[in-house]
Amino acid sequence: MAYTRLTALEAAQIIKNGDTLGLSGFTPAGAPKAVTKELAAIAEAEHAAGREFKVNLFTGASTGQSTDGVLSLAKAIGYRAPYTTNSEFRKCVNCGEIRYNDIHLSHMAQEVRYGFMGKVDIAILEVCAIEEGESTCKAYLTSAGGISPTVARLADKVILELNSFHHPEAGLLHDVYEPLDPPYREPIMIKNVTDRVGKTYVEIDAKKIVGVVECNIPDEARGFKGEDPVTTQIGRNVAQFLVNDMKRGIIPPEFLPLQSGVGTTANAILAALGQDPAVPNFNIYTEVLQDAIVPMLLEGRVKEASTCSLSVTNECLKQVYDNLDFLKQHLVLRPSEISNSPEVIRRLGVIAINTAIEVDIFGNANSTHISGTKMMNGIGGSGDFERNAYISIFTCASTAKGGVISAIVPFCSHLDHTEHDVNVIVTEQGVADLRGKSPMQRAHEIIENCAHPDYRPLLREYLKIACGGQTHHNLPAAFAMHDTLQRKGDMHLTDFSEYMK
Amino acid sequence: MAYTRLTALEAAQIIKNGDTLGLSGFTPAGAPKAVTKELAAIAEAEHAAGREFKVNLFTGASTGQSTDGVLSLAKAIGYRAPYTTNSEFRKCVNCGEIRYNDIHLSHMAQEVRYGFMGKVDIAILEVCAIEEGESTCKAYLTSAGGISPTVARLADKVILELNSFHHPEAGLLHDVYEPLDPPYREPIMIKNVTDRVGKTYVEIDAKKIVGVVECNIPDEARGFKGEDPVTTQIGRNVAQFLVNDMKRGIIPPEFLPLQSGVGTTANAILAALGQDPAVPNFNIYTEVLQDAIVPMLLEGRVKEASTCSLSVTNECLKQVYDNLDFLKQHLVLRPSEISNSPEVIRRLGVIAINTAIEVDIFGNANSTHISGTKMMNGIGGSGDFERNAYISIFTCASTAKGGVISAIVPFCSHLDHTEHDVNVIVTEQGVADLRGKSPMQRAHEIIENCAHPDYRPLLREYLKIACGGQTHHNLPAAFAMHDTLQRKGDMHLTDFSEYMK
Repeated sequence: MAYTRLTALEAAQIIKNGDTLGLSGFTPAGAPKAVTKELAAIAEAEHAAGREFKVNLFTGASTGQSTDGVLSLAKAIGYRAPYTTNSEFRKCVNCGEIRYNDIHLSHMAQEVRYGFMGKVDIAILEVCAIEEGESTCKAYLTSAGGISPTVARLADKVILELNSFHHPEAGLLHDVYEPLDPPYREPIMIKNVTDRVGKTYVEIDAKKIVGVVECNIPDEARGFKGEDPVTTQIGRNVAQFLVNDMKRGIIPPEFLPLQSGVGTTANAILAALGQDPAVPNFNIYTEVLQDAIVPMLLEGRVKEASTCSLSVTNECLKQVYDNLDFLKQHLVLRPSEISNSPEVIRRLGVIAINTAIEVDIFGNANSTHISGTKMMNGIGGSGDFERNAYISIFTCASTAKGGVISAIVPFCSHLDHTEHDVNVIVTEQGVADLRGKSPMQRAHEIIENCAHPDYRPLLREYLKIACGGQTHHNLPAAFAMHDTLQRKGDMHLTDFSEYMK
Repeated sequence: MAYTRLTALEAAQIIKNGDTLGLSGFTPAGAPKAVTKELAAIAEAEHAAGREFKVNLFTGASTGQSTDGVLSLAKAIGYRAPYTTNSEFRKCVNCGEIRYNDIHLSHMAQEVRYGFMGKVDIAILEVCAIEEGESTCKAYLTSAGGISPTVARLADKVILELNSFHHPEAGLLHDVYEPLDPPYREPIMIKNVTDRVGKTYVEIDAKKIVGVVECNIPDEARGFKGEDPVTTQIGRNVAQFLVNDMKRGIIPPEFLPLQSGVGTTANAILAALGQDPAVPNFNIYTEVLQDAIVPMLLEGRVKEASTCSLSVTNECLKQVYDNLDFLKQHLVLRPSEISNSPEVIRRLGVIAINTAIEVDIFGNANSTHISGTKMMNGIGGSGDFERNAYISIFTCASTAKGGVISAIVPFCSHLDHTEHDVNVIVTEQGVADLRGKSPMQRAHEIIENCAHPDYRPLLREYLKIACGGQTHHNLPAAFAMHDTLQRKGDMHLTDFSEYMK
C-alpha cells in the first residue's frame, strides 16, 4: 500500500490556525524542513489578509532556520517548548510575542503524554525510509531521536517528510523506545552506553498518515567557531581535573561515560581528553554529538557513544553515513527522554560537563537568562545531566564582552542549577572543587580559583559586606554588579556602598 | 560467637578527635542515642582541659537530641552532612561553628562511596537484633534505613547499639539494598511500592565490630502540633486539585503513589485525601512516614507504603510493632538512596508534595534559607522527589509571622528548586497550576491565586517596575521586600522606588 504523496505546500495547507504541531528533530538535526517553510508562507499571507495564524510547537529541542527561524519571522508561533538556539525565535521570545515554556528535555515527551501542555494535532517527522504497511507504518528517523515516537503516537494526523538527503539506512542507528506511563512504567534496561532496548523505527498507525512529502534538503546543524586560548585552557583544566580524580581513585580506572554540552568549549574539552595519554579510551552518553567525536569513534579513541542527535556539519554527517556499517555497532541514537533519562544517567555514572552563562560564589549556575531577564536558549538537557551525574561540572570563561562582565557574581541573576547540583566549576583561571564543602568554603574556592583576578577584590568585598548564617549575603547589594553593568556598561565600576541600606 | 559488649562510655572512648562517624537513622528515627551522649560528655571534658575535640557526622538525615543536639551543645561537630532539624545544630551552623554540607538525601550514600567527603572512620548503628556470625554479622535495623549499609561497609570500625526499646523483629520491615557504583550499577528493580530487592539485614564484616552496646532508649521522633485553619485549607486545596486532575484524566484512575513532606501541612493533606471519597485507596512512596499514615495503613485506606523512616511518636511506633505481622506485608523501610532514588520516583510516577519557606512569582522555591542567609533545616529529600515527580507540588501559607512576611516574593532569597522543577503551588488562598506556562503567565497565576490579598498590589507593582524579556525583573528591587522586612519589620511597608536606580 502506498501512502498519499503531497507537495510541501499541500501538506502545509492541512495545518490550521491554532494547531499544535509535534516535530521530529533535536538541535537542528533531523527536524522537518519542507512543510514548515510553506507553513510560514501561508501564515504571512493570512496575516497580510488580516487573519490570525499561529501554531504551537512541541519539539525534542532546537529546530533550524527552516522551522523555528521562518515561523518566528512570520510571527506564526504562539507557544513553544522546549529549548531552541534559533536567533529569530529568541527575539520573539524576548519581546513577549511567543509563550516559551523552557522545561528539561527529559521531561518533554512525558509532559506531552501526561497532557500538561494540551493535545498534539499534527506530527511532522523527517524520515529517511518508510515501510508503508496497511495498518502500521514503520518510519525510520534521520539524524535525531527527539520526541518523535511520542508525537507520532499522540497526534491526530501525521505528515512524513521523506528526505533523501539522508542515508536510507540512517534509521539503523536508532534505538526507538518509548516508556509506558506510571503506574505501568518499567525499568529502562540500559546498562551499557550502546545497549538497545527498542526498535530501529517509529511505529505509526497508518490511518493517521495524511501525506508523505518527498524532498532532498540538507540538514541544518551548525559548525562551531574554532577554539580560542580561553576555551583551550578550560578544556585543559577539565581534562587535568578528571585525570587527577582518576589517579586518586575517585573516578574508576575504566573511566566513566562523558556528556559534554554543545559548542566550542565542549569541543576543546573532548580534544584535551582525547589527547591525554592518561585517559583510557572512553565512552560518551550524551544528547548532542558534535563533529569532534566522529573521528574519535572511527579511530576507537571513543569506544561507544549514545546520543539523541547527530548535531554535526553536513560533511561530518556524510562521514557518518559512509561508515554506517561500523558505526551502527558503536553509536546509538535515542529519543530525548532516554538520552536524558535521570535513571540511565545516574546508573551509568555519567560525568556531565556543561557551560553556564554565570555562576555565583556559592555554586549556583545560570544557564538561560542574560542579566536575569533575556532568554538566551534555554536549559536544554543541562539539568538532566548535571542533576544526575557522577560528577557535575560547569564551565565558563571568567569574563565576557572584553572583560566588562564577570561570569562569577555574588548572586546569579537567574538560577537553573542550585548549589545542591553543582560539584565543580572550571574557568580558564582554574578549578573550584565544591564537593563536600559548605557554602562559605565554596565562596572562597570559587573566588580564588575561578574568578578573573580583576574581579577578585570586588567579590571579596561583597563577602565583607555580606552577613548571615549558613550563606552570607547583603541582599540589596546582591545584584549590584548586574545593575552597574546595565547603568555604566562595566561591572568593574561596581560600588557596593551605593546599594547598601 | 559473641561479640564484645561495651558500655556506652567504653564505646565512646574508641572515638578520637577528628574522626568521621557514619550514623544510622533518618529524621530522628533509628539514630544512635547511647554512645553519642557519652561522646558529648567526653568532648566537653576535653574542651575543659583545653584540648580540641570535634567529630564529623555523616547520617541519613536528622538525628535527635541525643546525637545532633548534645554534640552541638558540646561544640563537638566539625562537619556534617546532610539535613537535620535539630535546633541546637541550627544555631551552631548559623554562627559559623559547623561546616554544613546540605546535599540531596539521595546523593548522600553515593557521595560517601565516591569519596567526595573523605573516609568514614567509625559507624554507629542502632539495631534491634544481631546474628553474631564468625565472619559476617547480620545486623537488623530499627525504625529507619538511612545510610546504614554504606557506612557499615566503609567504616574501619563498627559500634552496634542494640536497643531493646525496639521490637526484636523490626528488621523484617526493612529491604536493605545498596547499589554498586558505576560502571557496575544495575537497574533498581522496584516496579511497585513495596517490591523487595534486598535483604532484611545489613551484612557487616565481623572483624570490624569493635563492640555492642546494649541499651533501652525510646526513639526521638517528634509529634507535630495539630492542624490549624490555614494548614487545613491547604490540605483541602491540594486534595481538590488532585481530584480534579484525576477527573480530567491527567492522573490515572488507579491514582499514583504520594510523597508528602514532614509536618502539620503534610498531615492535613493526607487527612483531606483520606477523607475524600473520590480518591481511591492509594499508595505511599516517601522518605518519612508520620503518625497519620499508620491507622490508614491498618484500615487499608493506604494500601501499601514505602519509606526510609518511621518518624512517628513512640505511641505510634508501638502500634506498628503490635501489628508487625500485618505491616510487614504492606510496609517497607528502605535506605535513603532507594527511598529517594530519582530512578524509582520517576518510574512509579510519585506525586510529590513538599513545603517551601518561600516561592517567587516565577515558580522558584526556597526550602532552606530564611532571608537567604539563615539555614532552617536543609533541602532534605524535597529535591529528589520534586525533580522526579509526576506532579511537583509545593505548599506554603501565603504569609508568616502574623502577616508581616509574604511567602510569595519577586525573587526567592535562596533557590533550592528552580522554575523547571515546580508544577504547582498551593497556599490557603488557592492553587497556581504552572504546568505548560511561560514565566509571565506563571507570575499572574501565582500572584492572583496564591499570594495573600494584602500583598497582591505590591507584587503587581513589582511586575510594573520590572522589565526584560522572557522573565521580567528589576534586579535592584528584587529583594526590596526582604530588605524592608529586615529594616522595618514588615514587608507591607515596601517602597520599591527606594531601591530603583
